[in-house]
Amino acid sequence: MAQNIYDNPEFFSGYSQLPRQVHGLNGAPEWPAIQAMLPDLAGKRVVDLGCGFGWASRWMREQGAASVLALDLSDNMISRAKADTADPEIEYRKADIEIVELPAAAFDLAYSALTFHYVKDFPRLAQMLHQALVPSGSLVFTIEHPIFMAASHPHWIRDEDGRMTWPVNRYSIEGERRTDWFAKGVLKYHRTIGTTLNTLIKAGFTIQAVEEFAPSAEQIRTNPELKDEIERPMMLLISAAR
Amino acid sequence: MAQNIYDNPEFFSGYSQLPRQVHGLNGAPEWPAIQAMLPDLAGKRVVDLGCGFGWASRWMREQGAASVLALDLSDNMISRAKADTADPEIEYRKADIEIVELPAAAFDLAYSALTFHYVKDFPRLAQMLHQALVPSGSLVFTIEHPIFMAASHPHWIRDEDGRMTWPVNRYSIEGERRTDWFAKGVLKYHRTIGTTLNTLIKAGFTIQAVEEFAPSAEQIRTNPELKDEIERPMMLLISAAR
Repeated sequence: MAQNIYDNPEFFSGYSQLPRQVHGLNGAPEWPAIQAMLPDLAGKRVVDLGCGFGWASRWMREQGAASVLALDLSDNMISRAKADTADPEIEYRKADIEIVELPAAAFDLAYSALTFHYVKDFPRLAQMLHQALVPSGSLVFTIEHPIFMAASHPHWIRDEDGRMTWPVNRYSIEGERRTDWFAKGVLKYHRTIGTTLNTLIKAGFTIQAVEEFAPSAEQIRTNPELKDEIERPMMLLISAAR
Repeated sequence: MAQNIYDNPEFFSGYSQLPRQVHGLNGAPEWPAIQAMLPDLAGKRVVDLGCGFGWASRWMREQGAASVLALDLSDNMISRAKADTADPEIEYRKADIEIVELPAAAFDLAYSALTFHYVKDFPRLAQMLHQALVPSGSLVFTIEHPIFMAASHPHWIRDEDGRMTWPVNRYSIEGERRTDWFAKGVLKYHRTIGTTLNTLIKAGFTIQAVEEFAPSAEQIRTNPELKDEIERPMMLLISAAR
């Protein structure tokens, strides 16, 4: 059973104030990069793993997706998502991505935003998603970047010139990382990029694109607090074909 | 024209004392990981890009490769490599990987160790190698890891617990990096992992494996000075199929 930090009231209260929760997809600076990875959605059957408030699920329906199965571990998330939509072709369902089983060849697209780094057994998940997709189906997901997650003390420091700098250590030591983020001891799983990609390849996927998100100059102009994000990638975006 | 630091006497003198130059492949801790990526070599036509003293070229012939075209920019390297072999099926040739053209469908394997990070125009190289390989041919190469190369001041620091830590900044700012390594101002080109992989994919390659080299516990026991290498990857190993 995965840790369900999203139903911790302290966490949920802080988390709900994030720009990406208040403003939806447009509050997520990586959203344009994700969109560029997504296939044409018209008529597609989508599973959204870790749907949160359901912003992406609803957007996919607006783009013509035939149906969306939107999964999340959190009662808070599912309740809010259900309250925000009346679309009968979006099914919100409470599910633990760590153990969830999906039917074979039932989806054209598996999508997940910032969820898989909470999953301990990524090989199981990759294999399960491979069988749940139709041939030539797509898997598009984002996770926290291992550069961002690896260190014992993952926080900004400054180099000898005063430049914002990110510390990396324990990179090859995979497994649990605990961090304080709106609550104490949020549990994540660090994997190298190599492990993530090789796990997908071994499960039968073909890697189509790998993006280490950095904001564009235009995004930094509009939103100056993004400027440090060019120093180290916080998110890894992966697109793979079944 | 690529910078030819290897023919700088000061550089060459220091470089020649590296364990991997003195002891050959067994002096390179990543060699077992590279071997695991290589296809069966029997009967294969190989091009070795940046062959150095020719250790890998000779090893590949011992494994049954039909022929090896071994390229290097450095007169020093080529002279020494030629002096060390009498094998008529290894052709050592001076060539600048930045601009070299190879004939179409002439090779079964393109191999390169710690050379491509000196190449400015990686898209050109990837496309050229794709056409030089036969269908189902292999590309296996190692480069300095972008985590290792990115920062303005890439050197060990310590975190608040005293743990050996590597600084990352300028990660998304690709391009020239100058470093002092046996000589002043050695010129390398930083690219993100995403850029390297996407460039290969766009050139038509299928990614087969990505390894961010870290020594094994056994390697650290035998060679304790490797222990810090678990903190951050120094090398990126990539295997791709045409």
